[in-house]
Parts: sequence; structure tokens; C-alpha cells
Amino acid sequence: MASPYHSVSGKSKNNDDGRVVFLASTLLWPLPPDLSGGSPDPIHVSLTFGISVALMSACLGTAGAVHLNPAVTLSLLAGVRMSLASALLYMIAQVLGAITASGFIRSVTPPEVRGDLGLNVVTPGVSEFQAVCVEMMVTFQLVLCVFATSDQKAGLSKMAPVIVGSSVTLGHLVAIGFTGCSMNPARSLGPAIITANFESHWVFWVGPFTGALLATVTYDLLLVPRWNTQSL
Amino acid sequence: MASPYHSVSGKSKNNDDGRVVFLASTLLWPLPPDLSGGSPDPIHVSLTFGISVALMSACLGTAGAVHLNPAVTLSLLAGVRMSLASALLYMIAQVLGAITASGFIRSVTPPEVRGDLGLNVVTPGVSEFQAVCVEMMVTFQLVLCVFATSDQKAGLSKMAPVIVGSSVTLGHLVAIGFTGCSMNPARSLGPAIITANFESHWVFWVGPFTGALLATVTYDLLLVPRWNTQSL
Amino acid sequence: MASPYHSVSGKSKNNDDGRVVFLASTLLWPLPPDLSGGSPDPIHVSLTFGISVALMSACLGTAGAVHLNPAVTLSLLAGVRMSLASALLYMIAQVLGAITASGFIRSVTPPEVRGDLGLNVVTPGVSEFQAVCVEMMVTFQLVLCVFATSDQKAGLSKMAPVIVGSSVTLGHLVAIGFTGCSMNPARSLGPAIITANFESHWVFWVGPFTGALLATVTYDLLLVPRWNTQSL
Amino acid sequence: MASPYHSVSGKSKNNDDGRVVFLASTLLWPLPPDLSGGSPDPIHVSLTFGISVALMSACLGTAGAVHLNPAVTLSLLAGVRMSLASALLYMIAQVLGAITASGFIRSVTPPEVRGDLGLNVVTPGVSEFQAVCVEMMVTFQLVLCVFATSDQKAGLSKMAPVIVGSSVTLGHLVAIGFTGCSMNPARSLGPAIITANFESHWVFWVGPFTGALLATVTYDLLLVPRWNTQSL
Ligand SMILES: [Ca+2]
Ligand SMILES: [Ca+2]
Ligand SMILES: [Ca+2]
Ligand SMILES: [Ca+2]
Repeated sequence: MASPYHSVSGKSKNNDDGRVVFLASTLLWPLPPDLSGGSPDPIHVSLTFGISVALMSACLGTAGAVHLNPAVTLSLLAGVRMSLASALLYMIAQVLGAITASGFIRSVTPPEVRGDLGLNVVTPGVSEFQAVCVEMMVTFQLVLCVFATSDQKAGLSKMAPVIVGSSVTLGHLVAIGFTGCSMNPARSLGPAIITANFESHWVFWVGPFTGALLATVTYDLLLVPRWNTQSL
Repeated sequence: MASPYHSVSGKSKNNDDGRVVFLASTLLWPLPPDLSGGSPDPIHVSLTFGISVALMSACLGTAGAVHLNPAVTLSLLAGVRMSLASALLYMIAQVLGAITASGFIRSVTPPEVRGDLGLNVVTPGVSEFQAVCVEMMVTFQLVLCVFATSDQKAGLSKMAPVIVGSSVTLGHLVAIGFTGCSMNPARSLGPAIITANFESHWVFWVGPFTGALLATVTYDLLLVPRWNTQSL
Repeated sequence: MASPYHSVSGKSKNNDDGRVVFLASTLLWPLPPDLSGGSPDPIHVSLTFGISVALMSACLGTAGAVHLNPAVTLSLLAGVRMSLASALLYMIAQVLGAITASGFIRSVTPPEVRGDLGLNVVTPGVSEFQAVCVEMMVTFQLVLCVFATSDQKAGLSKMAPVIVGSSVTLGHLVAIGFTGCSMNPARSLGPAIITANFESHWVFWVGPFTGALLATVTYDLLLVPRWNTQSL
Repeated sequence: MASPYHSVSGKSKNNDDGRVVFLASTLLWPLPPDLSGGSPDPIHVSLTFGISVALMSACLGTAGAVHLNPAVTLSLLAGVRMSLASALLYMIAQVLGAITASGFIRSVTPPEVRGDLGLNVVTPGVSEFQAVCVEMMVTFQLVLCVFATSDQKAGLSKMAPVIVGSSVTLGHLVAIGFTGCSMNPARSLGPAIITANFESHWVFWVGPFTGALLATVTYDLLLVPRWNTQSL
């Protein structure tokens, strides 16, 4: 389908994208357990996730660029920028990649310091509704950045890895105290499955998906209206 | 009006800019309360504000680029780079966005750890005059960067988001110990209204405005004199 | 030999490259011992190594770009992108540079705080096999980035210093708790020789070399297959 | 004089450069005293100096780019890239700017937490000779970066602010534990004069100057030999 997304990349979609998305998703969180047992430095975690996304986007090409996250995939689907078949394929690859990565992290980390493998939890004292709002807000800014960088008319596609990576870092800097920062249901599902802990897990689907859809509406109706010729 | 500011962006000004400025200002400070109750890491706060400004500038286009801050808006007005009507519209949108953001932060943060919502205060031991001088200095360097990046002859406009974002981070790294770093009266007004605390609040208008005007004079008289043909 | 690596750089290989590689390797680790005797901040170390690699790549040209690391050199050799003679020359220069740098660090640091000169060790509690897996994973992502940036068709060569430097920083952020992060047998050999401590030293050859070879296979068979005309 | 340095900038040298250098030098160290009285975070200081240099280079043009540091100025003079008259003018402006900045910092900081205004001192336990060696090494890498970015044939001049700024940050990350990191005699002279403390002050002239001259020789004889037509 000739969408702005595909024409930005200039690449023909091929059947192997699922494998690349799986690979990218596996590499996407070299979760740095704090082996001393203390709580991890927020800047350390924020930089790790942001640089990781930026590098995977830059080096693994189109499929790696924006398809590391079911919430982002949903927004592109809702924004009529990709087909349902591709969206489902990518989401499956993302979830499988997340589970693989969490399993790997678990196997290389000593049990005493394994912690929770970077499991997203709602910080005590914060209500689940507040957590959903925070996740919604940080995912909203992430998807706005994804749309802006994949929009050919804005001319930002060359900088997409840096912009999206910085957006991931920013989301973590903001939300990490509330929820450990998810913005990505697959990234939350991996550790949840491996540690069999689904406490408040729904927050990390509802928050990111809601934020992603809100961003799609904001972008296509307010910022770069799609039903007239007004350019940004 | 055909000003260097508008021609750099290549976009026609449209009546919706006020809405975009409001959106950008709302997203501009996902203030990261330290939910553990301790005092926030200066680098954490500095990076958050800087990346936030850089991303909003890059993704929300012209209106988002330099109009997140009444002090910057004032400097562009004083430097005859925008009209009074636009300046007033932008300042109103910035203040409304700041109040909205502070209200949102307050609603999602548990009361015990709400702290002061990132309220700017003068650190005990520092006089209000010293605080005004510090705010003046850091806003001075910020506005210099804004002028340099919006000046077509310098050719820096493509790098404007990175340069202005880095300038915001730098200002915070320098001033955060003195005042929590404002550089932006709207950013200071939001939390002040929500927490009903206007202690030394005037510092965060006088300091940034003075620094902005000083930078306008320095740029237009010393660095890139506007009344002769000497190029930078 | 007309390989994509050489054509990207556009420079003729000359016999002095060995001296440049030696120089670059010497400058490559201004190891920042924590003179207060505490354990070094992971972000401090990660940034130091990453910025160091990025700058040496940018400023010392081709030989400095990707030949600071025997594991990377091995991957380029295995990927038929350089000659065996060059690979051996570079590895010797890298090892000599590492020993020189470690000797220099030892001479300028007071004995009481000399620590272990940044020696790579396997953190207590982590098995040697787990350490090899972690080193393998972080070197894998590093070599993927090197291949992607030296591949002319991907068009990333201008950004190579930033991408490879960020990859080095990321590897450290992830692995530093496990092994101090090596990814580079020469970087591990220098301090090992100077402090005469080869405990688990084999981990820092097997892990990086295995990760490098795995990345070569992944890149040349999955991502950018070399035996058909499909472009990335 | 038609030197590579001038042709890269494409600007005619004008008599006002001294004033711009003074301004840039004044803005160059908004030294962030730690107002809580503790010792400053090395990453905080390193980022502050690096971003500061990068921004001044980018926004204040040629005179601001490489002439914030007498050691760098000396290297350009020794490398026959500028005239003696310009070099002396710049060094005077740098020293005056440093004194002004230190005086300003002193005036806005409460006495109890003024500390030593960022005075460079040799850390107890480190000999003055070791300190000279460290300063020599970090200034060496800084000047190499300056030469590489001002050399037209290398094509790095657009990235000069980022490269030189990163080099400044790197120097601090490495040397800050030994000497507080100088690399810049003017930056050391300012606080020394204001606090009337010249203990080991000679280290911060001999180290940087020696490193700068060593870099000039290395660049012009080894890396980019100036007496034949071999390109980098
Ligand atoms: Ca529940
Ligand atoms: Ca008062
Ligand atoms: Ca052993
Ligand atoms: Ca002495």
C-alpha cells in the first residue's frame, strides 16, 4: 500500500520483516539489573532504553524503526498507514521477542540479584488510574514523535532514530518513578510472563494504547490534518 | 510579516498556531517528581527539560520551536521579529499550557510525594538579587542560541531543536541549585498558581525578561549588527 | 582490495595505518580511576568509553574508525571485508596500544587508589558461562552497528562515529555490572598484563569473538544477504 | 592570512573578534557550585563544560569556535594557522573573560557554599608531575579534535561544535579526579586570581601547553603531514 510510511522508507515490504522485528525486539532491552541489589539509577535505565531504540532503528532499517512497540504499531494501523496483516505480524514478533529477551536476561543473571527483570509495576501510593494517565501521556508524546518523523512532508525521517530514541529516554525520565515506564505492552509482557506476575498488567496495555490512539487523532486532526491540503 | 523568523520556517502563519503553542506548552514539562521524597537529581531534571524542548521543537514545527517561553517571545518581539498580536497570543497560550500541565501533574501524583510540583524557589542563602542575576545569565545564553538558530545567515536552523534543547539543559545544570532554574515565566507560573505559592515569584519574571532583552541588544548590536551589511 | 569498507572511506590504504591504529588504541581508554576509592559510577565509565570511541573514529579517519577492537577486526576479516595481513597488523597495534595506555594510567595514578586499572573481572555470583553470554550479546550489537555503518548501501557511514560510540556506551550500560564490559579483547589485555591478573581472562576473548562472528553471520545471511541482489 | 582555519569559516577576520572572544570566554563557565556544600557530581560538571563550549562554538561563530582556550590558540599559532597578533589578542580576551566570569560567580554565590569557585587543584596524593602528564594527555586529545575539525580536507567542520564539545566533556570525565580538569590556562587563571590561590597553578599552564604542542606535532607530522600531497 502506498502510504507515506512506506514511501519514506523507499523499501518494498518483504516477508522477512517479521524476523527482523523479532530480532530488533529481542535486542531492545538489555535490561541492566543492578547486580548490587540496589534500585537502578533512573538515568542509567532511561539512557539504556533510549540508545537501544535509536541504534536498532538506525541499523536495522525500516522494520526496526517504528515496529518495536505494539502501541506504535496500533497507532500506525489506526492512522491508516499500514495493513492489518502487517500490524498483527509485527505485534506477534514483538511479543515473542520480548519473551525471548526476558528469558535470556533471567538465564544470565544470578538469582539473588535477579530482581524482577525490569517488570513494570505501579509504584505503591500511585493509583492504577493515575498510572494509566501517566502511561497515556508518555506514550502520547512518543507516538507524536513517530508520526512526525515518518511524515514525508516534515522532512525529519533522517533524524528518526535520534528523535524516537530521545523520546523513549524522555518517557523513562518522566514515568520511571510511577510505573518503571512501559510505553510498550510487549516490553511489559515479557517480564510478566517470565516472572508470572501480572499485577496491574492491564495498565501497561490500556495506558500505552490509549495514548497512542489519542496521538493519532491529535496528529491527523489538529497538527497535520489529512483531509485538506494544508501543509505543516 | 516577512521576518527572518518566518522565512526560515518557510511556513505561512495560520490562526491555529495558538492551539499548537498551547499543546506544546502542556507537553513541555512532564515534571518528574521524585516519588521517593528525596530531592531530584539535577542531571535528571536538566535532561528532562532539555530533551522535552528539543523534541517539541522538532516535531511540532515552527510554532513549537521557539514559542514555549514568554521570555523568548518577548525577545523576538523586542527584536522586531514578530508582531505584538502574535506575541500576546503566544504568551497567553504558554501560560494556559503551563497551568494545565501543573494541574495534570498534581492530579497524577500522590499527595505525600507531590512536593512542590517543580515550583521555582530561591534557594535559602541566596538573595533575591543574586537569583535575578543568575536567571538573567542563563536566559541570556538561551535567547542568544534562539537568535543564532533563527537567523538565516548563520545556517543553523536545521540544528535549532538540538541547540535550543542543549541550551535549556545547560541553563538547568548551571542554575538549578540557585532557583531550580526557570528561564521561563510561564513554566514558573503554572506551579505557582496550582500550589498558590508566589514567594519570590517576581524573580522568575524579572530575571528571564531582563536576560532576554539583554541578549536581544547583544545580538542585534554587537554580534550581528542589523544596521549595516556586515555579515556574521 | 575493493571492499565496501574501503570504498566507503574513499581512502587508499597506506602502510602507516598501523601507527594510527596504535595511536587511537592508546587514546582509547583514559580510564577514570575513582580517586576517592569508591566504585566508579557506571554512567561515568559508559560515557567515557563511548565518547572516546566516537571522537577517535571521527578525527583519526578510517583506520581509527573501526579498528580499535580485535573482535571488530575479526568480524571484518570473517566477513571478507579486509585482508588477513591488515587484520593481523591491526590486532598487534591494538594490543600494543592497550598495554601502553594501561602502563600510562598506572604511572599517573597514586598506588592507594590505583584500583585495578579498569581490569575486566567477572562479578562475584555471575558464572563464567553467564559472563561469556553477556559479552557475546553486547559485542553482537556492537558489530551489527559497525557493519551497518560501513555498508555503503545503508548510507549511514557519515554517522558512523556517533552510532558506534553510542553502541559502545550502550554495551557498557548493559554489561558493566556483569564484567565491567569488555567487548574488546585488547582493552581487557592491557590491564591484565600490567596488573599480572588473568583471572577469567579467557572470557574476554571468547565472548567478544563469538558475538562478533555471530553478528557477521546474522548480517550477511539474514539482514543484508550477500548472495542475492536484495537491498536492505 | 589564507590558512585552512580561515577558509573553513569563510569569514573575513574583523577587529571585533576580540570582543566576541571576551564574551564567549565569559559565558564559558557558568560554574555550578554545589550549593549543598557537597562535592560536585563529575558528570554534572563534565556535561556543563562540554555543552557550554559546543553552544558557544555553534552560536558565536568563528571567533567563538576555537578561541576559548590559550592552549588551543597556542597550537594554532605553532601550527602556522594564525598570526601572532591574533593569538595575543585572543589570549588577553580569554584571560579577561575568565576573570570576569569568576568574579561574577563569586558575586552571586553565598559565601558559605562558595567553595573554591571551581579552582583547579591537584588532588592530594597525586604528584604535580603526574598532574602535568594527565593535563597533557587530555589537552592533547582536545587539540587533535580541534585540528581535525578545522582541517578542510577532513570535512568535519560542520560538526566542529559537537566534536569539540564532546572532547571537552571527555577530558573532564577523565581528568576531573586528578585536577578538576583544566585543559585551559585561562579557565584556571580566573578562579586563581579571584581566590588569590596559585597553589600548583603552573601545572595548568605547563600541562595544557605541552599537550597542545605535542598534538600540533603529531597532527602535522604523523596524521596529516603538511609537507607532501598525501591526503588524510
Ligand atoms: Ca490490580
Ligand atoms: Ca520576597
Ligand atoms: Ca577461571
Ligand atoms: Ca607547588
